Amino acid sequence: MVKQERAARTRQALIEAAAAVFAEEGFAAASLSTISRQAGVSNGALHFHFASKNALADAVEAQACERLARITATAPARPLPLLQRVIDATHALMDALAADTVLRGAFALACEPTRPRQGSPHTHWQHWLEDILRRAERNGALARGIRAADTARTLTAATVGFAVLGADDPSWLGRTHMTALWNTLLPGLAPRQDLPRLRTTGSHPTPPPPHPHPRP
Amino acid sequence: MVKQERAARTRQALIEAAAAVFAEEGFAAASLSTISRQAGVSNGALHFHFASKNALADAVEAQACERLARITATAPARPLPLLQRVIDATHALMDALAADTVLRGAFALACEPTRPRQGSPHTHWQHWLEDILRRAERNGALARGIRAADTARTLTAATVGFAVLGADDPSWLGRTHMTALWNTLLPGLAPRQDLPRLRTTGSHPTPPPPHPHPRP
Repeated sequence: MVKQERAARTRQALIEAAAAVFAEEGFAAASLSTISRQAGVSNGALHFHFASKNALADAVEAQACERLARITATAPARPLPLLQRVIDATHALMDALAADTVLRGAFALACEPTRPRQGSPHTHWQHWLEDILRRAERNGALARGIRAADTARTLTAATVGFAVLGADDPSWLGRTHMTALWNTLLPGLAPRQDLPRLRTTGSHPTPPPPHPHPRP
Repeated sequence: MVKQERAARTRQALIEAAAAVFAEEGFAAASLSTISRQAGVSNGALHFHFASKNALADAVEAQACERLARITATAPARPLPLLQRVIDATHALMDALAADTVLRGAFALACEPTRPRQGSPHTHWQHWLEDILRRAERNGALARGIRAADTARTLTAATVGFAVLGADDPSWLGRTHMTALWNTLLPGLAPRQDLPRLRTTGSHPTPPPPHPHPRP
């Protein structure tokens, strides 16, 4: 392994260890020596890559935003109704929060009062929701009277809430809870004629639908 | 002022100072000497009343639960449709979070990974939502196919999200954002014939006073 490659691996191990410690202990309580120990590197190596705990947190957030961007980027590429893409992206985000330490660490950082909000994945997420829901509004894919910006804010708040509650009780990150949200939200959100082709469980064939949508 | 009265005042000042510091700096970063200084009492007085930072946090949460209980207790007493009571309680909670340091401090504590979830006001809030929405479901005050438990979870998550996002940007705690949530949610949630008499802005003719919890 060449030197550069080894450095990149060390950096990545530090980001993942930091994310895990931020998620488990919180940013303020997280110690740099716990992070370097968990990454399997020396304190010196940590300080070579990151000048401070804030620099580490910035790196966790930047990487979480990249991962979130991959989730939202795949959504519009699929030949599906716009609202189905939103539903699918919310499920994909919950799956990712359950499985991906970096994303979970970044969402935990967003609760930290001393951290700036700018680099947070919440902001990226809200902007993506606003964009796709505005397109849906223009295309007549939202029910009459429903405003894209309102819906984007509601979904952002609910997602942030799921992430916070899921940090303590992982069932909040499961498909059941997000499907329940869509079962509640969708009947008012989508034009009546679109409801039969929208799946609140997400369009992925794998998980069986725990709450089949009862409305016509 | 008799001794007992003075002790109660000191205790209350400590709870409010602790809540403010938890909300501003986070639980882990909060120092006991900052809290006692902000309460205007000595470190000795703090330790006389509270054995640890966790004991202070427990007291903040207990008092927040009492205040939340007052919000939810007034809601069912009013001669209003059940869903209107839920709408009103969500607005009252946001008003209280904007105005009441103790409630805000307790919601901030709920983000803290090392704190137990049991005493959190979230739990009280979710149970209240479940109860009143089940009553609404039984009384035909929810649209066909809408489940009380799903709606309670969605509203809990959204409220927690509003509180987290509002810690950084207070506009999330304003009536506009919560009204936007209800504008999105209500058309699918309420039976069609009930919609004209439900007000997503809340049934209060004027916004409630900035301090809905007058202290004794």
